[in-house]
Amino acid sequence: MPQSEAMAFLRESLAKRNVDVEVVEQTLTSQAIEVPSWAFADSGTRFKVFRQKGAARDIFEKLADAARVHEFTGVAPSVAVHVLWDLQDVNVAEVASVAGSLGLRIGAVNPTLFERDEYKFGSLANPDAAIRAKAVDHCLSSIEIMKRLGSRQLSVWLADGTNYPGQDSFVARKSRLTDSLRQVHDALESDMEMLIEYKFFEPAFYSTDIPDWGTAYALAKRCGPKAKVLVDLGHHPKGTNIEQIVALLADEGMLGGFHLNSRKYADDDLTTGSAGLYELFLILNELVSAAGGSALYDCAYMIDQSHNVKPKVQAMVQSVMSIQEICAKALCVDRQRLSEAQAACDIVAAEEMLKQAFFTDVRPLLAEVRGKMGLATDPLLAYRQSGYEKKIQAERS
Amino acid sequence: MPQSEAMAFLRESLAKRNVDVEVVEQTLTSQAIEVPSWAFADSGTRFKVFRQKGAARDIFEKLADAARVHEFTGVAPSVAVHVLWDLQDVNVAEVASVAGSLGLRIGAVNPTLFERDEYKFGSLANPDAAIRAKAVDHCLSSIEIMKRLGSRQLSVWLADGTNYPGQDSFVARKSRLTDSLRQVHDALESDMEMLIEYKFFEPAFYSTDIPDWGTAYALAKRCGPKAKVLVDLGHHPKGTNIEQIVALLADEGMLGGFHLNSRKYADDDLTTGSAGLYELFLILNELVSAAGGSALYDCAYMIDQSHNVKPKVQAMVQSVMSIQEICAKALCVDRQRLSEAQAACDIVAAEEMLKQAFFTDVRPLLAEVRGKMGLATDPLLAYRQSGYEKKIQAERS
Amino acid sequence: MPQSEAMAFLRESLAKRNVDVEVVEQTLTSQAIEVPSWAFADSGTRFKVFRQKGAARDIFEKLADAARVHEFTGVAPSVAVHVLWDLQDVNVAEVASVAGSLGLRIGAVNPTLFERDEYKFGSLANPDAAIRAKAVDHCLSSIEIMKRLGSRQLSVWLADGTNYPGQDSFVARKSRLTDSLRQVHDALESDMEMLIEYKFFEPAFYSTDIPDWGTAYALAKRCGPKAKVLVDLGHHPKGTNIEQIVALLADEGMLGGFHLNSRKYADDDLTTGSAGLYELFLILNELVSAAGGSALYDCAYMIDQSHNVKPKVQAMVQSVMSIQEICAKALCVDRQRLSEAQAACDIVAAEEMLKQAFFTDVRPLLAEVRGKMGLATDPLLAYRQSGYEKKIQAERS
Amino acid sequence: MPQSEAMAFLRESLAKRNVDVEVVEQTLTSQAIEVPSWAFADSGTRFKVFRQKGAARDIFEKLADAARVHEFTGVAPSVAVHVLWDLQDVNVAEVASVAGSLGLRIGAVNPTLFERDEYKFGSLANPDAAIRAKAVDHCLSSIEIMKRLGSRQLSVWLADGTNYPGQDSFVARKSRLTDSLRQVHDALESDMEMLIEYKFFEPAFYSTDIPDWGTAYALAKRCGPKAKVLVDLGHHPKGTNIEQIVALLADEGMLGGFHLNSRKYADDDLTTGSAGLYELFLILNELVSAAGGSALYDCAYMIDQSHNVKPKVQAMVQSVMSIQEICAKALCVDRQRLSEAQAACDIVAAEEMLKQAFFTDVRPLLAEVRGKMGLATDPLLAYRQSGYEKKIQAERS
Repeated sequence: MPQSEAMAFLRESLAKRNVDVEVVEQTLTSQAIEVPSWAFADSGTRFKVFRQKGAARDIFEKLADAARVHEFTGVAPSVAVHVLWDLQDVNVAEVASVAGSLGLRIGAVNPTLFERDEYKFGSLANPDAAIRAKAVDHCLSSIEIMKRLGSRQLSVWLADGTNYPGQDSFVARKSRLTDSLRQVHDALESDMEMLIEYKFFEPAFYSTDIPDWGTAYALAKRCGPKAKVLVDLGHHPKGTNIEQIVALLADEGMLGGFHLNSRKYADDDLTTGSAGLYELFLILNELVSAAGGSALYDCAYMIDQSHNVKPKVQAMVQSVMSIQEICAKALCVDRQRLSEAQAACDIVAAEEMLKQAFFTDVRPLLAEVRGKMGLATDPLLAYRQSGYEKKIQAERS
Repeated sequence: MPQSEAMAFLRESLAKRNVDVEVVEQTLTSQAIEVPSWAFADSGTRFKVFRQKGAARDIFEKLADAARVHEFTGVAPSVAVHVLWDLQDVNVAEVASVAGSLGLRIGAVNPTLFERDEYKFGSLANPDAAIRAKAVDHCLSSIEIMKRLGSRQLSVWLADGTNYPGQDSFVARKSRLTDSLRQVHDALESDMEMLIEYKFFEPAFYSTDIPDWGTAYALAKRCGPKAKVLVDLGHHPKGTNIEQIVALLADEGMLGGFHLNSRKYADDDLTTGSAGLYELFLILNELVSAAGGSALYDCAYMIDQSHNVKPKVQAMVQSVMSIQEICAKALCVDRQRLSEAQAACDIVAAEEMLKQAFFTDVRPLLAEVRGKMGLATDPLLAYRQSGYEKKIQAERS
Repeated sequence: MPQSEAMAFLRESLAKRNVDVEVVEQTLTSQAIEVPSWAFADSGTRFKVFRQKGAARDIFEKLADAARVHEFTGVAPSVAVHVLWDLQDVNVAEVASVAGSLGLRIGAVNPTLFERDEYKFGSLANPDAAIRAKAVDHCLSSIEIMKRLGSRQLSVWLADGTNYPGQDSFVARKSRLTDSLRQVHDALESDMEMLIEYKFFEPAFYSTDIPDWGTAYALAKRCGPKAKVLVDLGHHPKGTNIEQIVALLADEGMLGGFHLNSRKYADDDLTTGSAGLYELFLILNELVSAAGGSALYDCAYMIDQSHNVKPKVQAMVQSVMSIQEICAKALCVDRQRLSEAQAACDIVAAEEMLKQAFFTDVRPLLAEVRGKMGLATDPLLAYRQSGYEKKIQAERS
Repeated sequence: MPQSEAMAFLRESLAKRNVDVEVVEQTLTSQAIEVPSWAFADSGTRFKVFRQKGAARDIFEKLADAARVHEFTGVAPSVAVHVLWDLQDVNVAEVASVAGSLGLRIGAVNPTLFERDEYKFGSLANPDAAIRAKAVDHCLSSIEIMKRLGSRQLSVWLADGTNYPGQDSFVARKSRLTDSLRQVHDALESDMEMLIEYKFFEPAFYSTDIPDWGTAYALAKRCGPKAKVLVDLGHHPKGTNIEQIVALLADEGMLGGFHLNSRKYADDDLTTGSAGLYELFLILNELVSAAGGSALYDCAYMIDQSHNVKPKVQAMVQSVMSIQEICAKALCVDRQRLSEAQAACDIVAAEEMLKQAFFTDVRPLLAEVRGKMGLATDPLLAYRQSGYEKKIQAERS
């Protein structure tokens, strides 16, 4: 069946669901998924980092890889950076300029608050005032970097916590952390945001200073209007209804954005869409719903993954495509009939509205969108055939 | 070794830990643990309710049983009631009077928001405005009952939620719930409290309207100063650091009280202290810490258990004793050395301060406290030998 | 797009994946999914059983409902029964005859080993030899019933376990249980099977006597060749890789069958396919793989669900359709390219083979299969429009 | 109170519980807890390895540290080694000789099957036959090392598994793994054991080749009589009843030993006894029970911990002491009354027998045992005051 027929068929189906395909296409065309610089470098577990031939070794190689992801997918125009990993001993202006020349921009800036020996007992919540001050200073420097890079998001993830009962006072840590975060918040320009990330556990194994959305929310409220909550999909106890948290945060105006990834066990940082596909759909469904039904809620959509065994650029292309595909499905929900079924407490019909959208074959739609954007229908295949991987394997050995 | 020697020895040990035994004894003597009326009646799982001979069949038999628990332990002076289970077709004034004559008072009043057929799709968050109004009315009636019983706590647990994706809108449910809770809150007298309980799941199996402390906290903030959060120990995802939540809520002035119990899996409602004994100690340690080191934080300590296979009165005596024993241990922490170790980041020493207290044999202390209160040294043994169980088995058949 | 075109298109796509559509259609046509009698009766949680108008009240009404499910889906020809719930005070021969006249047969027979007061401390593992003997007798009677009903599977689920540490000896319980199960096993006819079900927890809250597949497997090995393992999808700790267990059991020749359902938290007994859709696909993918690639592994596919808030017959039609749809997807995997990718350690390509199949729109295929079987294209819609629900609501009040 | 009085009192209490203190003391004196060489070296998480001053840098420094643990505790006479971490470029005979001169012996030998780049897709289960052969060879070399070191246990932990659905065939991996393990098993001398360790997840994030005790058990059965199961306390899904698994494996004669540690979340490798203290007691209680009531079941008791933030030698002394203390408590159970209560289904009394033992203050007993062994009463304090930490910090910088 030619694409045009498939698309005609899909258009007709969606019309019956009160879905305006043109609006959906516009949403998908203008969608922006941010990739993380660190996903192009070697990564691993505490047991082993398997070196991959061609893995990026500095920010410029990472930008080059990110540019390929954007070239083939068309919806990954920005790159998140980690200050100590990417911008030490580097000319920040050059980074901005290289990114620009590659058709990219720098997105969120992540202060690196866990890689120095003095952070053994914490950074912004460390019992030692001098170390806290250093950590705050690092954040303030990161804000300066944001200004130079044109970044609007300071993305704060802390490894802070304790490993043993009694190691420190919860209340003292909370008080120190609140104080540190406030200083950072107050240094932001008015159109910048501080995204406060929470995490259930790891690397702290008894208590984590920001363990759940409630703590991140309460801290953000104490800091002020530029503070919002960042949801990493892998940072919850198993079984947590993440879509409900997302709906609540959006409703409260406190949802700053996402770290997208998948996991089966802990914070596995797997390719988004490799597990929990229906859950991802339900999360994106809330974001479409919060945006009125035919757009995506306005917040930062950032990938945060570690591809320990998959080829890194391929995995990133695959991730971006998965997110895009599930977004497309979430945009295909018949919201009118869903609302009617909900009002009637017709659970079966309401559920079927979601499953119908989830199992809609949106590939003709994506093909059309990609065609209009001048992209290959199958970006993953096109990338695999492009020869880029061989090239970097040769160049970067 | 006679009790006096054992106590002398313990007194000496505790003095070295900067623990004032007299103050500890005073705290333990004045401690009040609330028992739930429903724990004296038959209970079970969805698979089977095993009928126990002698189980209480109405509020008066429940009060009689609770009176035995208080008689033998001395620290269980109040009884929580559930409105539909206990007070339907009953003269409320008579309940108060019978309780008083047994040396008891009525504690928290629990509106029963899950046992009517109209609550199939929720109570305070039901899509149907008429059903929500009924649920709110039931809460308002419960407040009237509080006034007549001299109760100061309205303890609100909701079964509200959904079983399937799409069944209802998270945002709509949140909005309805906020509105309902506010009405209830505003009907409370100024010295009354509304305790908002959260629960990870069950009986709702896809989404629960108040699934975590963060939601309960945000709702309480919206309602006003009489609303606080209720922590049930069995209502968290596995691995949750409950002591950290408790410390945070107490620090924020938002901790209303507890439903004490133990669990290994879900919300198992087992005897407090039958699992996770060290965790219970760590929780109580935070409450002692929040109260300055030699008292218990001022909030409601309520038991919420279902003894499906254990004899009910025995199990309640055992529960009260377990809580008391772990409280005693938490009062034996050397807080000065703990603080010093924390300040020095001496993790091993800090941890040992907690373990030392946890493994302190506090039985001589409890024996002394009980002696002064005119109680048997071993309330469980005394109860088992009292003949009460045989008596109710005969009378209530 | 007319069905014929859609099917032609799908046929072409599948041909490229080395999938023989005719074989797939044959597999789907001959598929048999067993429904449980108890899913048509009222059910609930420990908090409340919401009565549904029209819910079946005895085995004959349950059979009538099951017949509707089979009438509309065409792939649900058998019904599992629970001895005490269904066959007390009933003429077993009449049950068989009514089933036959409705186009159904009785499938697995479930002895009911948890509903009598004497089972408070266990059935086949009870410390009391007399109670164990009673439980064994009930199983032997169930085998007699199997003979009269033409059933080949004795499906054994035990509620046996303990609620508190120390309550009983693990080793003693294991020894008693082994002994009881052997007696039951030895009474089976040579072409009958005893399916041993395991469950992580509930209703036992400290230890369950058959808590995991390993225990069920070891017990089955001790019993003999007629014993196999039954996998209930809701009976695992969260995060368990169930598809791996299934692959292992099939490879060992020890997989007896399934209790199909979905869950997000514990043993929620939700509609199959309402959560974890990709996981369900991965499980069915193993069963197709174990059967050589174009069939389903030969074992019992039984639904075990409780629809506390959904209309019961609708929910069962929806469940059967979900299972069928995911089976169809699992039959659409390009196994040749999957094997090649696996051999080449090309993780991305291998994973894409599975996701490609999962997101294949199989509705044209199912429409064709249903057309050939003389069924409506959308059985759920057809059932909803059939008037059956109104009829039973009127008749069974 | 002097030690003699405290001990007299304890002796009297225990006599009433039918516990023979002399036998308990003998058990505690002859107890052997194995420490892992790697716990003395730097360790960390994927985010950061914090370097500790004085951390051991080679096997000889590790042995020196282990010798201090044994010197102060008296019950840690052996050291587990990891082949690639400890014995590369080292004279194995010298290792044995240095260990001997320090009063130590080498315990379990752990082949290192996860640190080479070729193990990216597995070791003993790798799809590539050549890599499997290399991994088998490494195990065979490890057996040769065992002979030279006088070790009797080959402790096999595999990182093998997959990160993504489809990455490899479960059945193929199982078949390869069985074949590899058999080769290793058959190379063992008749009095050697192969301990097969299982792990729920990490570093594999989709499937782990030996994910649970059932798989380890089935593999061991296939290998032969020298294969047994190794239980690491941190390698289970949350909530797993580990004491039941331990009882089952001991009863089946398949329990080879332990990796002792504590965890709150995943495989946190914390100090044994820092979390889940009562659970640890219940596990040890099963081992005492399996050994007849006054001894410990005969298997390998090995610690496996990573002290990322605690001082390493201190943490190991603390760990050994915690294990010893909980063992002492498990030896104080009144087994006669426990059995009687179990036989009578007197749950409350049975449970109290366990809690009574758990909360028994065994420090006078341990003081007596240590006195007889010529050790300090408080080994942790003695070690902290010994100056060893300062010494190695100075020497090893």
